Amino acid sequence: MSNKMWGGRFGESPDAIMEEINVSIDVDQHLYAQDIAASKAHAAMLAAQGIITASDAKNITNGLDTILSEIKAGRFTFKRALEDIHMNVESRLGELIGPAAGRLHTARSRNDQVATDFRLYVRDAIDSFDADLASLQRALVKRALEHAATVMPGFTHLQTAQPVTFGHHLLAYVEMVGRDRGRFTDARKRLNESPLGAAALAGTSFPIDRRATAAALGFERPMGNSLDAVSDRDFVLETLAACSIAAMHLSRFAEEIVIWTSPLVGLVHLSDKFTTGSSIMPQKRNPDAAELVRAKTGRIIGSLTALLIVMKGLPLAYQKDMQEDKAGAMEAFAALSLAVRAITGMVLDLEPDEARMKVAAGEGYATATDLADWLVRTLKMPFREAHHVTGRIVSKAAEAGVALHKLPLADMQAVEPAITDAVFGVLSVEASVNSRTSFGGTAPENVRGQAKNWLMRLEKEQKST
Amino acid sequence: MSNKMWGGRFGESPDAIMEEINVSIDVDQHLYAQDIAASKAHAAMLAAQGIITASDAKNITNGLDTILSEIKAGRFTFKRALEDIHMNVESRLGELIGPAAGRLHTARSRNDQVATDFRLYVRDAIDSFDADLASLQRALVKRALEHAATVMPGFTHLQTAQPVTFGHHLLAYVEMVGRDRGRFTDARKRLNESPLGAAALAGTSFPIDRRATAAALGFERPMGNSLDAVSDRDFVLETLAACSIAAMHLSRFAEEIVIWTSPLVGLVHLSDKFTTGSSIMPQKRNPDAAELVRAKTGRIIGSLTALLIVMKGLPLAYQKDMQEDKAGAMEAFAALSLAVRAITGMVLDLEPDEARMKVAAGEGYATATDLADWLVRTLKMPFREAHHVTGRIVSKAAEAGVALHKLPLADMQAVEPAITDAVFGVLSVEASVNSRTSFGGTAPENVRGQAKNWLMRLEKEQKST
Amino acid sequence: MSNKMWGGRFGESPDAIMEEINVSIDVDQHLYAQDIAASKAHAAMLAAQGIITASDAKNITNGLDTILSEIKAGRFTFKRALEDIHMNVESRLGELIGPAAGRLHTARSRNDQVATDFRLYVRDAIDSFDADLASLQRALVKRALEHAATVMPGFTHLQTAQPVTFGHHLLAYVEMVGRDRGRFTDARKRLNESPLGAAALAGTSFPIDRRATAAALGFERPMGNSLDAVSDRDFVLETLAACSIAAMHLSRFAEEIVIWTSPLVGLVHLSDKFTTGSSIMPQKRNPDAAELVRAKTGRIIGSLTALLIVMKGLPLAYQKDMQEDKAGAMEAFAALSLAVRAITGMVLDLEPDEARMKVAAGEGYATATDLADWLVRTLKMPFREAHHVTGRIVSKAAEAGVALHKLPLADMQAVEPAITDAVFGVLSVEASVNSRTSFGGTAPENVRGQAKNWLMRLEKEQKST
Amino acid sequence: MSNKMWGGRFGESPDAIMEEINVSIDVDQHLYAQDIAASKAHAAMLAAQGIITASDAKNITNGLDTILSEIKAGRFTFKRALEDIHMNVESRLGELIGPAAGRLHTARSRNDQVATDFRLYVRDAIDSFDADLASLQRALVKRALEHAATVMPGFTHLQTAQPVTFGHHLLAYVEMVGRDRGRFTDARKRLNESPLGAAALAGTSFPIDRRATAAALGFERPMGNSLDAVSDRDFVLETLAACSIAAMHLSRFAEEIVIWTSPLVGLVHLSDKFTTGSSIMPQKRNPDAAELVRAKTGRIIGSLTALLIVMKGLPLAYQKDMQEDKAGAMEAFAALSLAVRAITGMVLDLEPDEARMKVAAGEGYATATDLADWLVRTLKMPFREAHHVTGRIVSKAAEAGVALHKLPLADMQAVEPAITDAVFGVLSVEASVNSRTSFGGTAPENVRGQAKNWLMRLEKEQKST
Repeated sequence: MSNKMWGGRFGESPDAIMEEINVSIDVDQHLYAQDIAASKAHAAMLAAQGIITASDAKNITNGLDTILSEIKAGRFTFKRALEDIHMNVESRLGELIGPAAGRLHTARSRNDQVATDFRLYVRDAIDSFDADLASLQRALVKRALEHAATVMPGFTHLQTAQPVTFGHHLLAYVEMVGRDRGRFTDARKRLNESPLGAAALAGTSFPIDRRATAAALGFERPMGNSLDAVSDRDFVLETLAACSIAAMHLSRFAEEIVIWTSPLVGLVHLSDKFTTGSSIMPQKRNPDAAELVRAKTGRIIGSLTALLIVMKGLPLAYQKDMQEDKAGAMEAFAALSLAVRAITGMVLDLEPDEARMKVAAGEGYATATDLADWLVRTLKMPFREAHHVTGRIVSKAAEAGVALHKLPLADMQAVEPAITDAVFGVLSVEASVNSRTSFGGTAPENVRGQAKNWLMRLEKEQKST
Repeated sequence: MSNKMWGGRFGESPDAIMEEINVSIDVDQHLYAQDIAASKAHAAMLAAQGIITASDAKNITNGLDTILSEIKAGRFTFKRALEDIHMNVESRLGELIGPAAGRLHTARSRNDQVATDFRLYVRDAIDSFDADLASLQRALVKRALEHAATVMPGFTHLQTAQPVTFGHHLLAYVEMVGRDRGRFTDARKRLNESPLGAAALAGTSFPIDRRATAAALGFERPMGNSLDAVSDRDFVLETLAACSIAAMHLSRFAEEIVIWTSPLVGLVHLSDKFTTGSSIMPQKRNPDAAELVRAKTGRIIGSLTALLIVMKGLPLAYQKDMQEDKAGAMEAFAALSLAVRAITGMVLDLEPDEARMKVAAGEGYATATDLADWLVRTLKMPFREAHHVTGRIVSKAAEAGVALHKLPLADMQAVEPAITDAVFGVLSVEASVNSRTSFGGTAPENVRGQAKNWLMRLEKEQKST
Repeated sequence: MSNKMWGGRFGESPDAIMEEINVSIDVDQHLYAQDIAASKAHAAMLAAQGIITASDAKNITNGLDTILSEIKAGRFTFKRALEDIHMNVESRLGELIGPAAGRLHTARSRNDQVATDFRLYVRDAIDSFDADLASLQRALVKRALEHAATVMPGFTHLQTAQPVTFGHHLLAYVEMVGRDRGRFTDARKRLNESPLGAAALAGTSFPIDRRATAAALGFERPMGNSLDAVSDRDFVLETLAACSIAAMHLSRFAEEIVIWTSPLVGLVHLSDKFTTGSSIMPQKRNPDAAELVRAKTGRIIGSLTALLIVMKGLPLAYQKDMQEDKAGAMEAFAALSLAVRAITGMVLDLEPDEARMKVAAGEGYATATDLADWLVRTLKMPFREAHHVTGRIVSKAAEAGVALHKLPLADMQAVEPAITDAVFGVLSVEASVNSRTSFGGTAPENVRGQAKNWLMRLEKEQKST
Repeated sequence: MSNKMWGGRFGESPDAIMEEINVSIDVDQHLYAQDIAASKAHAAMLAAQGIITASDAKNITNGLDTILSEIKAGRFTFKRALEDIHMNVESRLGELIGPAAGRLHTARSRNDQVATDFRLYVRDAIDSFDADLASLQRALVKRALEHAATVMPGFTHLQTAQPVTFGHHLLAYVEMVGRDRGRFTDARKRLNESPLGAAALAGTSFPIDRRATAAALGFERPMGNSLDAVSDRDFVLETLAACSIAAMHLSRFAEEIVIWTSPLVGLVHLSDKFTTGSSIMPQKRNPDAAELVRAKTGRIIGSLTALLIVMKGLPLAYQKDMQEDKAGAMEAFAALSLAVRAITGMVLDLEPDEARMKVAAGEGYATATDLADWLVRTLKMPFREAHHVTGRIVSKAAEAGVALHKLPLADMQAVEPAITDAVFGVLSVEASVNSRTSFGGTAPENVRGQAKNWLMRLEKEQKST
């Protein structure tokens, strides 16, 4: 930062700590591609509107292309003295094309420029999340189809509740991720308006064409109010909120992987690709990636909280506080990207222990609900009474130390004489899951149907891109 | 909570602290209307599908209507021993209609029941926010039309930057609130699927019609996966995220009101309706409502953070942790509702001090940008050079202790000989705002146009409801 | 709220929404005991300093005592029109003793009054946490002594790592809770200064004795700066931070209980007192209290975040925003109190399945580290080499399908000829835990020693209170 | 990360995404100095206990010193394949000194090693905060002494309330910072226990001396429980909580600077060293550093929230989630360090506009409280009545359009006949501040006294270091 940046009115140089806290180039250099794209769109529009000459515009464009190549090739030196990406680019442009570089900043300011750059950056991040989340859905659906009929214990409170299928469990995450994608899509639509041309805060007296720059940058339209355009960071917040919810979903799967692969539980096995170990404790197959996904959730939520705090209570229009929007968001985006890809890898990698799952699904009278439902359906008992009768039958089974479907009919009839041996048709774990054919239920045919529907949607979507 | 609730298998009563931490009726009693509506829809469906008789359904419905009246009339005693709203209602239903009450719980569980109830509750909250935010937009647009040409200082960094109009400033908030409404609308769409019929977690073997109950409750469709249906709290989180961003917007306006009404600033005046005071310090016109709106933002963000933390890392399906979703959300909804209505009241109440605003807008060479733009436009100077020339002219004015439009032409020409007296046409605050005619800019004609567009949209929307 | 409160200078009544957002009596009525205590101390001091007469002071004190009785007996009607606890009490005092009531507010304001009241309230909360946490420590130590030699699997990454004892595991929480108590103690010390007498913000011209009121209320000293005294809410924030960390600790234990009691893991059993169930699924022993403890953590952290946000960026001195300090803090305190007591109940209630624990501790070559350490110690091998040799021996055992201590010596010698049969002395889980005698290690003798030390400290502490 | 790290038991290499999410060297390389110091202490102890030879220990120490020099000189290449700082150092040590390097890891594990390293790092951060905060206090006290009698408006609700002195205002921050330092000191004490020797989680069978390593590293004592030692991250959380509260304090001062330097307020002036500007808008003196301090607060609170979330619900002992403790904490520490130094710079730089302050202090009947207090003191009126009388007198002054001390005595007597002209002795702003001599009040003599006390304490403290 040099006091030359604000001309001769400043008699003194900034204090060292002022420079240290103020400089942003370490963070905003990651916006170089967006900054250059926006400048090119701006220059083309200025020329089209007759505000600068075609020849100046051409020189500016060529100069910017050169800078882009330099940065991509790692041949560009970002200078802290020039404070931010905008001044670094403009300064280099001056070196390359001379005074015409000074015409580029006509009818804009750094306030609308950075808002434009960061919108483009967040939009790119959203597009990348959408692609990664679609991959995760495809992985989940693929495994769900393989395991549409693999019976596992369904848990509530981490206690075995009723048998479900592993495919059904995986499809629950397809739904969650589907909502996540919906949130990103909605955020993208709302984000996709151009702040460029709002200038410092009030608009400009130059006859600019904001629709033209908006279109050139893929925005739907220019933002309707110039004060709002430079003051708004909703697009970051809404995206971070969508990231936080998505990360929370991933943390749930991560927690399940950690529990399922614990040797005492042993429902699922991860290969060496997704475990770390110890040469002396071969039982140690640490699910590090799952643990880190779970932890990243905390970091992502922290970023959302941080930016909400930064924005709280800021008067319009641009405040320097808003410069603190980028570092946290960039970290959160990188963390979510890692987490989605790691979970996708684990979904493709993991192998359920089907035998263990089936045994566990049948333990603890998990089909008691099926007995109660049978009483209601067959004997027309009110549910609450059926519930009570079932409780007594289960007690008998527990006393006898046998599973429910091993309890003699006579013992059941001692509790409720109207029970017939037809009841045994509903007491196995297979019968239980097969019977859950209500919409969205766990019956293998349902699961297969839902998985195929999703597969079709996902394949169609892939083709259209 | 009585151990009768889970029958004779439990030998001991719960510990006192267990009861104390577990009971939820203090909070979930606020769901009574939704709980009863969902039960009525469920009973009607059970009868239509032949799962219960028409006569049982009729008795259940009548009983539920009686309970609804009792609660509304304050004649219902909620019992902590019955733990939650579901058991309180079902228990009372048993008293009213006898054993048929026990048929209502067929093919459902408290897991899908509470998910249904709370979705309906959140949906109602969203509808109420939308109405309140529309009122706020109408208030803002009304005042913006009145003040489309009222010049005020536009701030960046709380330093006077360029003149804007007060109407333009108010319209910035109309845009923000517009995005807030968009977020609530999107959240509502994503929320509007029915969990009812997911039962405990796996679906049911009864031939239920989930589309019918969904339709009866105004849901678009049943949720596609029963495990997801009972495990999901996205609908609360997404709504709380939208609340947090909306509250952040309100906090910005609140901060501006606090600053503007400070006696040292004095840009805006609030009436006695929105100030508290002191009988001995008449200057004390404390903008309590604005301060409280600002503070509520903290509470609302805290609720979002809290629920994200609660949900992080929970295995599927229902976990008791999820019971902690309601109290915080209800408080946040109430806080946002208060904040929106308070800000709306203040928007309608506040009076700008137009004379003070105009003077402040013109202080500090706020039209220097206009001079630079004139140099670019008229003399074809590159912007960076014009920027520099302007700086030197402003220095001259500052040394002479005069405003920019009072500096003699000769003094300007001493810096840049090509300047003509046409320059004075752009140096007043009125000229400045009038010239900002770029799309979204602050020119009064723009502001009027934008305000009228909004007005039309808002009136049209009001008619259609 | 009545405009009479700020006298005749206000021409209009407040708007309804203004009243609704402004009223605080629903929350601050919980400060009644503290408010009255502070007023009594203030009145006594005013009399001692000759600012009011002894007779006025006596009447005031008697009146306040009457009000205290009325509130405790539930015979006091809090009026929303009187806005807050201070005005409710003062207004009633006027009814009881007439105009002398008007002398009580000499040399103070609601700003220092509420700061004093809430400090006293938070101090009470801290004292109560300290007592509850001490009970938890005693419960943990008691169980640790019982299970100082109960071998269980020690986990890292939820994978079995090395055998530890259950007592050792419980003592880890005694340490954590010890730090929690330390944080509360430090917060209490820092909190324990009196704001009373700071008046509105600037102090007062009356010859008050702030040391006297401080002493009467149990404060160490008066706060040193009157502006700070009315602007500070550190004492709430620091206490909420201590609550958040304590709750995090409890959430870890809660998570362990949820996992340990899961039927697939089965390391620990909770009685009916701390489980909820289902009459038809007897295996369902839902650890609701543990899940709720885990969830409360989210709410408590949310309260801390909320208040940090509320306070961020507030100019001195009192701002109305600060009124939002109480509701969230009170909820968080109640939540932590519930959580501590619930965990204490579960600690006393839970029963480890010792046989299952021992088997689990020995699975997966958990004593491989002991073998490696033996090689280092006995054969003077560098640790990294010992690590490698152990890996190869474990591989042999795994191929043979036997536990490490069942592998023939010859097989070990095939890898490392220098191994002798002395090695078998270190390969059992008992030998393993017995050998960990380093300070703080898991050896039963260590655990017993540490537990007894803690017991002594805790008993001594109990006696001194 | 190479699968060689956990030996031949792993058949497959880790997946690319697994490597990407798992590697920590980018972050934990900042712990190099602490890691090497801890290894040296460990090696010395191993030799002293006869666990390794003196010659091995010497070689290890020399090797570590070489590595330290290499890193400091920028000649060390950190390898991502070696995952973390511990393996990078150990691997290089092997290159330098051969197999003896393999003896260093005897009786420890990466779990206790990283806990030790990061404790040392956090302790260093605390020491640095303490020094920086002491500098801030000295700066505040220096300016407070200069402005002990500079009258300014005291605000509540950002409305002028009563006159105070600028020195008094600055001392309020000295108190806040004093509490901040107290929190860091307490956190340091609690932190200052050594985890080294806890090994993986259970302690070790080697005859190590944990007290020796603790002492060598400046710790008070070894931690008492090995499971706790590797599971605990309280020391980071407590420090982040102290950082958050400290940052909140700074944000309040930052907000005041932003408001005070706004041209409409103009109470305070910052020099060019702490403002950024614009060559064409000379009035623009943007207080960027203050805005950035305000914003950093959000980031710091976000880091605290993030780590609380990461730790919530983690079972003992080490979980990989805990690796996410460092990046956020390091960023928060850097942000707080910047913020403290920036505020200190501004405190030393800012100049109050004393004339403007005095005028503003006297506006709006700010001495009305003084009149009321005079009535109580002189006429023995109950305060509430005095309050009322004052209100009526102020009304008269307002109607007459004069300040309170310009209202003729007769007009006052028309309201309250007993008023004498002695009243005028209390109605000026100087009289007002001079009268506030209660302990901690704003009277210049008080302020001077308090400032001198602080100065003495701070100078004494400086000497002792």
